[in-house]
Amino acid sequence: MRGRFITLEGGEGAGKSSNLDWLATRLREAGKTVLVTREPGGTPLAESIRNVLLAPSDEKMADDTELLLVFAARAQHLAEKIRPALERGDWVLSDRFVDATWAYQGAGRGLDQDAISRLEALVVRDTQPDMTLLFDVPVDVGMARAGKRAALDRIEQEDRAFFERIRQCYQERAGNEPDRFRVLDASCDLDQVRAQLQPLLEEMLTWK
Amino acid sequence: MRGRFITLEGGEGAGKSSNLDWLATRLREAGKTVLVTREPGGTPLAESIRNVLLAPSDEKMADDTELLLVFAARAQHLAEKIRPALERGDWVLSDRFVDATWAYQGAGRGLDQDAISRLEALVVRDTQPDMTLLFDVPVDVGMARAGKRAALDRIEQEDRAFFERIRQCYQERAGNEPDRFRVLDASCDLDQVRAQLQPLLEEMLTWK
Repeated sequence: MRGRFITLEGGEGAGKSSNLDWLATRLREAGKTVLVTREPGGTPLAESIRNVLLAPSDEKMADDTELLLVFAARAQHLAEKIRPALERGDWVLSDRFVDATWAYQGAGRGLDQDAISRLEALVVRDTQPDMTLLFDVPVDVGMARAGKRAALDRIEQEDRAFFERIRQCYQERAGNEPDRFRVLDASCDLDQVRAQLQPLLEEMLTWK
Repeated sequence: MRGRFITLEGGEGAGKSSNLDWLATRLREAGKTVLVTREPGGTPLAESIRNVLLAPSDEKMADDTELLLVFAARAQHLAEKIRPALERGDWVLSDRFVDATWAYQGAGRGLDQDAISRLEALVVRDTQPDMTLLFDVPVDVGMARAGKRAALDRIEQEDRAFFERIRQCYQERAGNEPDRFRVLDASCDLDQVRAQLQPLLEEMLTWK
């Protein structure tokens, strides 16, 4: 039987990573084989594409170059890691997936949504997540948390309005696909986020 | 007025590069501003994508990853180099362009032609060559010439039948688009290839 595919989405400082680890531990305790991965990246080759994407450069990256690289890394991630794991019956937990492209490249950077849609059809095909956890946090709160971390990369140097557009896009997508999305209030402290995750974990464990 | 876009295509050892230099020199002598470039690559960022494409790796590159990287490099090359030059009214001479994707990835490696077609529409749009010079050479002759050069990269390690499919694809494309393609017999020596190029150069110089 095909495994289950869970994605975690949200802006900067939403706390996806630590909750991803918690969720993976709980699923393993329940006897699941769990693959934890992230985008962009997820395989050595996809990470090398991620490096091209994130490296600061004097040369302006064209919009369609950025989209094609994002989807090239995703195609590799799907072919080498996500699809084989799902075919083995394993669970896959990914820190970001295609919703992040709609939010960051589409809403954030204003790249051509028709191009995103066409590339999603070409690359993702029917490997869509079974559940997407949206860690929603006000931009100020998320930025204050993220600011504590290391030097900002090219994408994080964008301005405040950029992150507002990302948050709004995520919320809209969640509203449009309520069966797939679960929205968590990630502005509260970790224990309270875990309390929101607990029933979602229980829901996952009822899946046949 | 938009400049002119000339592409040179052909298999390994067809002699594109030395004839490209000759053609650029003749066009410059005729007063044209000429940009000489190549694919995959053509800008520092596109070259870094080329490096990801050509680097030998233990990880198998997925078919759609390969296509997306080829077109990512091309998108950057078009945005940063080819389109600005054409808009300035310059001539652009490129050692390979999208026909090479049809030949190498499509016919050679058997990648999905529908995907190539969709990516071509997305990336190349109306920036198609005004003239494409196909340097046609029997596979044996081309391989013997290419064998004199440095260590083979990942793509050149493919087998003989691969190069036969590439040659056939190029010939078919030339047959289907006789207005754009000019086929040169590149099996003969350099002077004889130049003799075939001379009338094509004269044809280009009649363009208004």
